[in-house]
Amino acid sequence: MEFTRRSFCAALAMLPADTLRGAPRINANRLRRHIEGLSVFGRPAGGTFGDGVSRVGFSAADVAGRGYVMGIMKAAGLQPQIDAAGNFSARRAGLDPELPPILFGSHIDSVPSGGNFDGDLGSLAAIEAIQTLEERGIRTRHPLEAVVWANEEGVAYGHGLYGSRMAAGKLGASELEQVWDGVLKADAIAKIGGDPHRIELARRAPGSFRCYLELHIEQGGTLDRAGIPIGVVEGIVSIDRYDVVIRGFANHAGTTPMAERQDALLAAAQLALAVNEIVTREPGRQVGTVGRLTVEPNAQNVIPGLVRHTIELRDLSSEKIARLGQAIQVRAGDIAAHTRTQIDMKLANHSEAAPATPEMQAAIEAAASGLGLASRRLPSGAGHDAQMMATLGPMGMIFVPSAGGISHSPKEFTSWEDCARGADVLLQTILRIDQRVPV
Amino acid sequence: MEFTRRSFCAALAMLPADTLRGAPRINANRLRRHIEGLSVFGRPAGGTFGDGVSRVGFSAADVAGRGYVMGIMKAAGLQPQIDAAGNFSARRAGLDPELPPILFGSHIDSVPSGGNFDGDLGSLAAIEAIQTLEERGIRTRHPLEAVVWANEEGVAYGHGLYGSRMAAGKLGASELEQVWDGVLKADAIAKIGGDPHRIELARRAPGSFRCYLELHIEQGGTLDRAGIPIGVVEGIVSIDRYDVVIRGFANHAGTTPMAERQDALLAAAQLALAVNEIVTREPGRQVGTVGRLTVEPNAQNVIPGLVRHTIELRDLSSEKIARLGQAIQVRAGDIAAHTRTQIDMKLANHSEAAPATPEMQAAIEAAASGLGLASRRLPSGAGHDAQMMATLGPMGMIFVPSAGGISHSPKEFTSWEDCARGADVLLQTILRIDQRVPV
Repeated sequence: MEFTRRSFCAALAMLPADTLRGAPRINANRLRRHIEGLSVFGRPAGGTFGDGVSRVGFSAADVAGRGYVMGIMKAAGLQPQIDAAGNFSARRAGLDPELPPILFGSHIDSVPSGGNFDGDLGSLAAIEAIQTLEERGIRTRHPLEAVVWANEEGVAYGHGLYGSRMAAGKLGASELEQVWDGVLKADAIAKIGGDPHRIELARRAPGSFRCYLELHIEQGGTLDRAGIPIGVVEGIVSIDRYDVVIRGFANHAGTTPMAERQDALLAAAQLALAVNEIVTREPGRQVGTVGRLTVEPNAQNVIPGLVRHTIELRDLSSEKIARLGQAIQVRAGDIAAHTRTQIDMKLANHSEAAPATPEMQAAIEAAASGLGLASRRLPSGAGHDAQMMATLGPMGMIFVPSAGGISHSPKEFTSWEDCARGADVLLQTILRIDQRVPV
Repeated sequence: MEFTRRSFCAALAMLPADTLRGAPRINANRLRRHIEGLSVFGRPAGGTFGDGVSRVGFSAADVAGRGYVMGIMKAAGLQPQIDAAGNFSARRAGLDPELPPILFGSHIDSVPSGGNFDGDLGSLAAIEAIQTLEERGIRTRHPLEAVVWANEEGVAYGHGLYGSRMAAGKLGASELEQVWDGVLKADAIAKIGGDPHRIELARRAPGSFRCYLELHIEQGGTLDRAGIPIGVVEGIVSIDRYDVVIRGFANHAGTTPMAERQDALLAAAQLALAVNEIVTREPGRQVGTVGRLTVEPNAQNVIPGLVRHTIELRDLSSEKIARLGQAIQVRAGDIAAHTRTQIDMKLANHSEAAPATPEMQAAIEAAASGLGLASRRLPSGAGHDAQMMATLGPMGMIFVPSAGGISHSPKEFTSWEDCARGADVLLQTILRIDQRVPV
C-alpha cells in the first residue's frame, strides 16, 4: 500500500458528486448540549460555562466527566470499553471485517482553570460523527472507533499524553511508581478503571488502525485572525525543553557594592532576553519561551543567589531548535562569564516532531472544500495525542479557530458554528478515507 | 549644648595621655565564650558553631537566648529589666545623678539560618564593657545602660527594628493585632516578658540618653578587603522599596507566535537590567536590587502573564534614591509600551537615612586611634536599631570586618581579634563621651 498525494487527490476527484452534495451533517445542537453538559464536571462552585473547568486527569471531576461521556456513547448505541491504561473508546462495526478501524478522538481532562473546548470538542465530535452515521443508516467499510485518551494534559504526574503514550508503547521506567498529590500512579490508573498491572494490554500495534484523526481547537490565533474556519495541521512541532540553573551568591542587598555582586537574577534576565533575540532573529514560526522561573532566597533585601528557569523551544524542524539551543548555550556562557555566575543549561526533554501524513492532509482539505469551507495548512505548536498515534500509523488533525487565540484559560472559546464545522469536516474526512480504495 | 567636630577634637586632644595609655581592655576570651554560649540557642540539631543559628524573634530559641544573656548581665553584677515592648537592658549607676545614661547595645534575634555575630557581638560587647569597668573599679559620670532590642530582624511579623521602633514611639496602627505563625503579636510580646497593653511605657523620650552607641559587624566586605579593623559609620542609608506588578497575557507557549506575545517576564527582565544600569551609571555608593520576583502561572509551557517583583534602592542621600526611582519609573513606562504590558511601580516603603552624629563619629575615630587601630568612615547599607535611636538623640556606630562580606548566613564570621577590637573601641568611646565636658 503506497499512496502519493497526487494519486489520492485523483481518487477523490473520481467520487460521484452527490456523495458529497448529500453529505450527512452532524447535529450541531446536540454537540453543543454535550459540550455544555460535560462542562459541569470540574466547573468552579457557583460558576457558569464561561468560568471554565478544572478537570485534571485522574481527579474526581475527571472520573465523573468520563462517566458522563461514556453515557453519551451508550446513548449513541455504542459500548464503551476501558483499556488497561484507562483510555476508553467505543467501536462501530464496518462492512468489511478484514479492514482495520478508522480511529478518531481526543481527551477530556483539562489544565487547572482550563477551558471547555480543548479536548472536549474532539472527544464529543468523535461520538457525534458515529451517531450521525447511525441515525442516517450509513455503514462504512472500515470499523469506526471513537477514543478518549486519559490524562493528555499531564498535570497529574507532570508528563503529558499519558494515555496515548501508553497506547504507543512508551511506558517510562518506574512510571507506575510515581506519586502525585499523595496517590501512586498505579492506583490512579486503577481509579479510572485501568489495569496498571497489565498496562501493556493498552498498547496498539503499528498498522492496527487505518488512520488516526483528531479534531481540536487551534489554541493559537492564526485561524481566528484570518477568519478561516478549518486548519489542516501539517504536523506537531518538536519541543526541546532546557532546565537552567544559575548560581550567583546570595548576599545583603544593602551592604554589597554593585561592582562586587554575583546576582543570579541579573544573569537570568540577560538570558531570557537572549532567548527572545536568538529565536526571533531569523524568519520562521519557531517559538522560544522562559515560562517558569524561581528565585532563591527571594527576599527583597537579599541579592538573588540562585535562579532556576526553563527554556522551551518549538518548531516543526528538530534541527532548527537544536541549532537555536546551541546558540543560546553559547550566549549563556558569555553571560555567566561577565556576571560572574555559573550557568548550567541542560536539555531536560526532547519531543520529536510528528508530521501529519500527506494523505490525511489532502483528505481533510478535500473534506473542507467539499463542504464549502475555506482551510489553511498550519503547524500545531501544541502537543496532542495525535503525535503518539503518528508513531503507529497515518495521522491527520483538523483545527478550528480559538477566539483571540486563547487557550488553557476559562476564556477559551470556539463559536458553536465553528465547532459544528469542525465536526462536519471530521465526519467527511472519515467518509472520504473509508471510501478510498487503497491502490 | 552645641558641639562642633572641631571643638570636640580639641577637647579630646586635651585629655591626659595616660588616660588612654592605661585604657582598660575588655576580656576577649570571656566575650568569645559568651558569643559561643549564645550560639547554642537556635543552633541546628547536631550542628556546631559554624552551622549558624535560627533564632527568629519571639521564637522559643529567642526566649531561651534572652534568658542566657540576662544571666550574663546578672553575672556581671547587673539587674536586667524587661520593658513593655520586650526589650531588656541593665543599668549601672553613674557618679552624677543628674546626667542621662550612655546607652549602647544591639539585638540577639537572627534571620533563619543566620550567623552568630550579627547583633550578638554588639549585645554581648555592651555587657562586657560594663563588666570590664566594674572589675577595674572605674566609675563613669554618666549612668551606663546596656540594651538588647527585641526582634530587630523582623522575620516575625515582617517588620524589622521592632523593639527599638517601639522605644522610638513608632507603633504602627493595629500592629498588635498582626498574626504570624498563628500567634497574635500582642501574645508574642507577652511571651518574651513585655506588656502589650501598656506598650507605650517602652517609649524613650527624646534627649533621655546622652547618646546611643552600637557595635556591629559590617555585613559588607569593605573593611575586610581593605584590612582595616574599625569602621566609623557615617550613617544608615535611606531605603526606598518599590513593589512592581507587570501584567502581560498568559497564553500557550507553543501556539502563540513571538510577535503576538505580551510576555510579562520579558518586560521584567528588561526592567531588572534597567535598575542595574540606572543605579550604576553615576558614581557613588548607591545600590539597587531586584531581590524578590514571582511569575504566574509559572509553567514551562505558558507565556508568563503576571510578574511581581521588588526594587530596593539604598543610599545615604534620600534625594538621590528618589531621583533614581524616578528614572526607573520613566524606563518602566518605555518598557511597558514596547512589550505591550502594563507596569505598575509603587513606592511601598521609605525609610529615612539616619546620619551618625559628627560628635560620635569623631569620638569613635579617636577611640580607635588611641588604641592604635586604623579606621575608615563608611555608610551602613543595612538597617540597624541605631537608626531608631538616632531619632531620639546622638547616635554612633562602630563596624568590625565581616570575612568575605558575608552576613545573614551560617558562613558569617568575624575573627575573635576583630570582635575584641570592636568591643575595646566601644568601651573607649563610652569613656571618651563620659569624660567629655559639655560646652
